[in-house]
Amino acid sequence: MAIPTDKELFIKMTVSAWETQVARVTKLIDSLSDEQLMAETAPGRNRGIYLLGHLTAVSDHMQTLIGWGERLYPQLENIYIKNPDKSGIEGPSINQLKDYSSKVNEKITQHISTMPATEWFARHTAVTEEDFAKEPHRNKLNILISRTNHLSYHWGQIVYLSKK
Amino acid sequence: MAIPTDKELFIKMTVSAWETQVARVTKLIDSLSDEQLMAETAPGRNRGIYLLGHLTAVSDHMQTLIGWGERLYPQLENIYIKNPDKSGIEGPSINQLKDYSSKVNEKITQHISTMPATEWFARHTAVTEEDFAKEPHRNKLNILISRTNHLSYHWGQIVYLSKK
Repeated sequence: MAIPTDKELFIKMTVSAWETQVARVTKLIDSLSDEQLMAETAPGRNRGIYLLGHLTAVSDHMQTLIGWGERLYPQLENIYIKNPDKSGIEGPSINQLKDYSSKVNEKITQHISTMPATEWFARHTAVTEEDFAKEPHRNKLNILISRTNHLSYHWGQIVYLSKK
Repeated sequence: MAIPTDKELFIKMTVSAWETQVARVTKLIDSLSDEQLMAETAPGRNRGIYLLGHLTAVSDHMQTLIGWGERLYPQLENIYIKNPDKSGIEGPSINQLKDYSSKVNEKITQHISTMPATEWFARHTAVTEEDFAKEPHRNKLNILISRTNHLSYHWGQIVYLSKK
């Protein structure tokens, strides 16, 4: 077994954390009925379907931030990022959203599997060259760390839809 | 400005994510009244005070996992990890818990500031030497990654105590 380089080890740690959280959230969402997903996670708070759309939109957007290419479903941004839940804008059905979510996660897994190690430590598209020279930790791998925490944050809310 | 080594850069990324989430959760908790912290985060779910105790106990326990030393408040484990909320066991007051939380976070910050870079990549106390040889990503820094996600998960719940 080849000993991983430091960079390879960090990527493995970060990607493992991301994949673990994606798998847990997907398993949770798949365990919920449509009725549960249409309910609010707590009184007056976001519904399950909105959080599913929101997480899908944010993951999809990560592709452009990291520089992997265009989003698969740019239309989700307006509904699930720029606007709050119950805005009156009609969104996709639960089944469509589950399909979008699965396609976005598959695409990200593909990108991760072909990303060269050094590329993860390069500047992402939302930081200037000048800032990056001073703050080299604001790289592409850091985006994945922050998106993993974002996923965990909403996972803690979606779990409130499950039976007690 | 010295260019950080790969290890130093990755530690900086991981520690920054941890400190950012600790600061956000602390700010949120400090913004809540005692009445809000005594309320359930959603009907039938954990109360704010329980989650404050739980996060403090889990952070405190991280010290032994990483090998920094003994916990400051081992008595919290029984109340906030081994037992669920509303178990009938009497716990500390909100003010005491806030004080414990602040002392645990300070202690962790001290440990982080004096931890040699290579030490972060050593085996933590809950993985065997044999497993670690096969899975070198199960190191001390990985504990901090998973605890940061744990904090984000409960942050998403505590936020439901704030005014809409």
